[in-house]
Amino acid sequence: MKSIVIHAAKDLRIDERETGALGPGEVMIAIARGGICGSDLHYYNHGGFGDVRIREPMTLGHEVSGHVIALGDGVTGLAVGQLVAVSPSRPCYSCRYCREGRHNHCLNMRFYGSAMPFPHIQGAFRETLVAEASQCVSAEGLTPGEAAMGEPLAVCLHGVRQAGELLGKRVLVTGCGPIGLLCILAARRAGAGEIVATDLSDFTLGMAGAAGADRTVNMADASDDLAGYHADKGHFDILLECSGAAPALRAAIPALRPGGIIVQLGLGGDMTLPVQAMTARELQLRGSFRFHPEFATGLSLMQKGLIDVKPLITHTFSLNEAVAAFEMAGDRTQAMKAQIAFN
Amino acid sequence: MKSIVIHAAKDLRIDERETGALGPGEVMIAIARGGICGSDLHYYNHGGFGDVRIREPMTLGHEVSGHVIALGDGVTGLAVGQLVAVSPSRPCYSCRYCREGRHNHCLNMRFYGSAMPFPHIQGAFRETLVAEASQCVSAEGLTPGEAAMGEPLAVCLHGVRQAGELLGKRVLVTGCGPIGLLCILAARRAGAGEIVATDLSDFTLGMAGAAGADRTVNMADASDDLAGYHADKGHFDILLECSGAAPALRAAIPALRPGGIIVQLGLGGDMTLPVQAMTARELQLRGSFRFHPEFATGLSLMQKGLIDVKPLITHTFSLNEAVAAFEMAGDRTQAMKAQIAFN
Amino acid sequence: MKSIVIHAAKDLRIDERETGALGPGEVMIAIARGGICGSDLHYYNHGGFGDVRIREPMTLGHEVSGHVIALGDGVTGLAVGQLVAVSPSRPCYSCRYCREGRHNHCLNMRFYGSAMPFPHIQGAFRETLVAEASQCVSAEGLTPGEAAMGEPLAVCLHGVRQAGELLGKRVLVTGCGPIGLLCILAARRAGAGEIVATDLSDFTLGMAGAAGADRTVNMADASDDLAGYHADKGHFDILLECSGAAPALRAAIPALRPGGIIVQLGLGGDMTLPVQAMTARELQLRGSFRFHPEFATGLSLMQKGLIDVKPLITHTFSLNEAVAAFEMAGDRTQAMKAQIAFN
Amino acid sequence: MKSIVIHAAKDLRIDERETGALGPGEVMIAIARGGICGSDLHYYNHGGFGDVRIREPMTLGHEVSGHVIALGDGVTGLAVGQLVAVSPSRPCYSCRYCREGRHNHCLNMRFYGSAMPFPHIQGAFRETLVAEASQCVSAEGLTPGEAAMGEPLAVCLHGVRQAGELLGKRVLVTGCGPIGLLCILAARRAGAGEIVATDLSDFTLGMAGAAGADRTVNMADASDDLAGYHADKGHFDILLECSGAAPALRAAIPALRPGGIIVQLGLGGDMTLPVQAMTARELQLRGSFRFHPEFATGLSLMQKGLIDVKPLITHTFSLNEAVAAFEMAGDRTQAMKAQIAFN
Repeated sequence: MKSIVIHAAKDLRIDERETGALGPGEVMIAIARGGICGSDLHYYNHGGFGDVRIREPMTLGHEVSGHVIALGDGVTGLAVGQLVAVSPSRPCYSCRYCREGRHNHCLNMRFYGSAMPFPHIQGAFRETLVAEASQCVSAEGLTPGEAAMGEPLAVCLHGVRQAGELLGKRVLVTGCGPIGLLCILAARRAGAGEIVATDLSDFTLGMAGAAGADRTVNMADASDDLAGYHADKGHFDILLECSGAAPALRAAIPALRPGGIIVQLGLGGDMTLPVQAMTARELQLRGSFRFHPEFATGLSLMQKGLIDVKPLITHTFSLNEAVAAFEMAGDRTQAMKAQIAFN
Repeated sequence: MKSIVIHAAKDLRIDERETGALGPGEVMIAIARGGICGSDLHYYNHGGFGDVRIREPMTLGHEVSGHVIALGDGVTGLAVGQLVAVSPSRPCYSCRYCREGRHNHCLNMRFYGSAMPFPHIQGAFRETLVAEASQCVSAEGLTPGEAAMGEPLAVCLHGVRQAGELLGKRVLVTGCGPIGLLCILAARRAGAGEIVATDLSDFTLGMAGAAGADRTVNMADASDDLAGYHADKGHFDILLECSGAAPALRAAIPALRPGGIIVQLGLGGDMTLPVQAMTARELQLRGSFRFHPEFATGLSLMQKGLIDVKPLITHTFSLNEAVAAFEMAGDRTQAMKAQIAFN
Repeated sequence: MKSIVIHAAKDLRIDERETGALGPGEVMIAIARGGICGSDLHYYNHGGFGDVRIREPMTLGHEVSGHVIALGDGVTGLAVGQLVAVSPSRPCYSCRYCREGRHNHCLNMRFYGSAMPFPHIQGAFRETLVAEASQCVSAEGLTPGEAAMGEPLAVCLHGVRQAGELLGKRVLVTGCGPIGLLCILAARRAGAGEIVATDLSDFTLGMAGAAGADRTVNMADASDDLAGYHADKGHFDILLECSGAAPALRAAIPALRPGGIIVQLGLGGDMTLPVQAMTARELQLRGSFRFHPEFATGLSLMQKGLIDVKPLITHTFSLNEAVAAFEMAGDRTQAMKAQIAFN
Repeated sequence: MKSIVIHAAKDLRIDERETGALGPGEVMIAIARGGICGSDLHYYNHGGFGDVRIREPMTLGHEVSGHVIALGDGVTGLAVGQLVAVSPSRPCYSCRYCREGRHNHCLNMRFYGSAMPFPHIQGAFRETLVAEASQCVSAEGLTPGEAAMGEPLAVCLHGVRQAGELLGKRVLVTGCGPIGLLCILAARRAGAGEIVATDLSDFTLGMAGAAGADRTVNMADASDDLAGYHADKGHFDILLECSGAAPALRAAIPALRPGGIIVQLGLGGDMTLPVQAMTARELQLRGSFRFHPEFATGLSLMQKGLIDVKPLITHTFSLNEAVAAFEMAGDRTQAMKAQIAFN
């Protein structure tokens, strides 16, 4: 079975690996599509991020869909041939956080394609995958590409939920990569009344407009900024920060009204923030990390036609073109979501 | 100036009244459309409801739109000729509840067409109305009929907000009159993942389906009920109770999962409820009454095309046909929202 | 081993039962004290309540403390000789509600001394008990009687938490049995600024005052009621309803201010409620049922001296006096909490 | 009338000023006590903070109590001779934020002793003050010194409320000046189960322990830190950050459990924060600024004996000793709250 394995920065290989045995409660899946995420790119380009570094070869990938090819003992509710989205979130269900329902903070999480523990958690960019049945959500009626968007969509649904209800609210989105765009779709679905999006790329801002942003602002253009939203202590109720870039966050802060909520989805290391100004306006900075129940929610919303992610999938490469796919995935002048077709 | 005045149950007249002077900060409006609400019908059919009874002739109506015909001193942001929706919510802005931002509980509320205080608060079913500029919200781009839906839409946005965020949630709506249908639209707009609606009328249930309900259940049909949702302690996260009928509420309770939220919008007097069963599943019954900031929110959502109320307006009568309009408005076999055209 | 077993209404016996084997992860406990709860009294006096009826002999009791006498394999953190409070809450930790952290709604709950499933869940009024180690919380520094109050205290902490934060809030408590009194203690601990308590018994109201109620109102006394709190749409922010009696709840409603929260702890079957008035003031009726994490919280608060339950324990009987204990426990003219000493 | 006026950094004078006329709805007060706050010290030591600088002579002070000496027309509920605490919070009650009940974000706030607008808002360190009756809260039963603590207590009640309910929660307090100590008192009053406090001064930590902290940690002592709270992703539910010092906040972050809430009360300019680590554990940083309804709440809690601030008042100086008072107020090796006696 072929797998896409990172060995070191810029050393991405298609290796042969064993599929592994099918145990009770498990499902064997022929992977159909895999989307390349920002963390995959960090491993590819830099061998990791922050303290998280590759210390052994690791199969990448955590945004996947596929067709069921075999069912382990005791599996019900799934059928051979069915298209499923596979959640990469594998909490232990028994640690203190799992018992509180905070599965995304599981002390023993085995999230696909993550170098955080050692040995690393091998990922899902592989021709065949054995997963727990509980990770699999029916994607009937969707394309394999849409199904593979279930994971980043779940991240964004989880993020938007951190902000509470959005009916008629004014929302600012900073960073218009796939997470930013899915946040725009999710915020609109949740009833946002006004959505403004910022980025430094005209390409991504164009896609943000197509996804439903009422206005886009290219912060690289000196004549076009957020100053028009500063009056009377600010304009936006909510900021969905998807860039992980401190300048984007800092520029957005004066545009938030007192009591405004910043949902931080972007991961970007240490940041120097105007904490005094944030305190004086009682802003709230709320971290949002991964997801758990939102995976099934996202699939369902796509199936009902309430969220349409198809326009975000700009590129699909074959498995043999994996390196080209990774090069393209990070190019924000022409690519939004790049996916790999495994079959 | 002609006004639609209730004198006693079934004694509705078109009377001549004075328009009144235009003061500073006020706006004179030529009323275009007025929608007939359930409380208007109570006055018309029964002379009131509960302890609230007509004790003097009262102009009815609180769902209106119109065109600005004159501006009082100091009014900015409005223009002669502009179509506006007029909020009937007129709190004092100085009592303890207004100062907490709970304007819908104002101790000195002067809500149009309400017999609750004496002298009664005269309503807005009249050819010409003088209102505070702050009651007027631009309805540019909408029809007068849509603009006059701003008030019941605000009621429903306020109600849906009581339930918190709805992304992917399962929602049951009981009662498919105009409030129920607007709740379906608002819940879908807020991201509800599944919407089931109940009523006793095939006509209204058909409209509920057209408005976006995923399934409708006619509770008058013995073969079709909510029992399928009782397993494992219930199915729905949220109930939007719009009927004010105790049987509807009681039938819905076993279909709600533990921790489920009931938003009570319908007004229906005393009810005998299974409080022990509600307690054991920790249900929450939350009253929802009128609105305040949601009036502008609703207009904005309609203007952006995010909520479409037009299909709900089934009948439009001329001012001279007011009695016929009131007779039709209560007929749930053929009417959803009946409006009166004043000009 | 002696156990207190209910066979039918008013047929309470001290039966010999087997202790059962000590398995891995379990603890054997010599029960020290057991408090008699309202549900124990319902089984004793009426053979059950509502649809819940005794269908086979059942050991009663779920408010117990004792000393560890043996540890099963793999148990850590507990020692032979230690005084522990034993939580009667035994969820499955794997159903949908457990996985959400709502353990009190577990689909497979095995709560001590409950006739809800059949075969019934046998209770803890017995000389020796084998429990899961995770049910046991250290009660070091407390008396066995205080430790046995951990369970009803947990019920009340869970209830008070349903109301959100209480700093300086105005709280009304209806019903001054043990749950009402523990709610007074918990509400004061949570920062309530004003506490008023109602009941029909001068004895319990006297204890309520001693527990910290700022004012007590005997609703049986026509000259003394809540009408003084009706002005300006009501006075109290929160009602902790501990009586399960519809008249108590109905009398309290007009004393609640708009947006007020009713936490329903009392269990009392169907109730006829003024739903229209509750809706118009946007009251919230929130059910509160049992507890889970609050069991450990309550023990800790008692150990730190932040809540003192000792004055509530008015009577302690020996095991042989069990029937007398049950007769006394329900007498609200002289008893608050009656406990049984097992050793 | 003598006033304590800052002219420039370290240039504090006792100047003669006019009392001003008593208008309708106003009260004339002979100031009794005034507490020196951190912002007063910033003006005294540095002529301001951040962009806020003294541009004209300004009477300092916003923590005051006094006796009513005259009532303006129409004032009810207050009597000559009565001791009152005077709130320095004077919002306009008509801007958008006031209308939402967020008075602390009033666009036209006139908070005593603040150089933020120009002309500056003159403060309350003066022998006689004319205030709105609505600013005055009865302090009957309290000493003038306690009454003057009403303002910083309100700041802390507002801060603690930002964290939601605290029953049994684990709370870390960083910074043990007056705000830190009042937060300890408020958190304990709100039901905190465990309180740990950090500072760099043994004097303030000793007072923190006396105020109820279960443990104190001197972060200047290398052998004593928060590392013991890092295991299993952290220990504390809530951080009340009262130092305004980035090192204190950064050291606290790893001790917070996933989902933990940081209430930022300290004001300390820009800070470099580990936003990625905060995001991965979904921490929430919530600014807390001033107060509004909490002023009356604090007075009431002190009057009922539920919060005791007396031990925090370490020094009282006469008006003529104002400079000595300001020198002492900032000395955290021997002073907690220094007050000035005006009469």
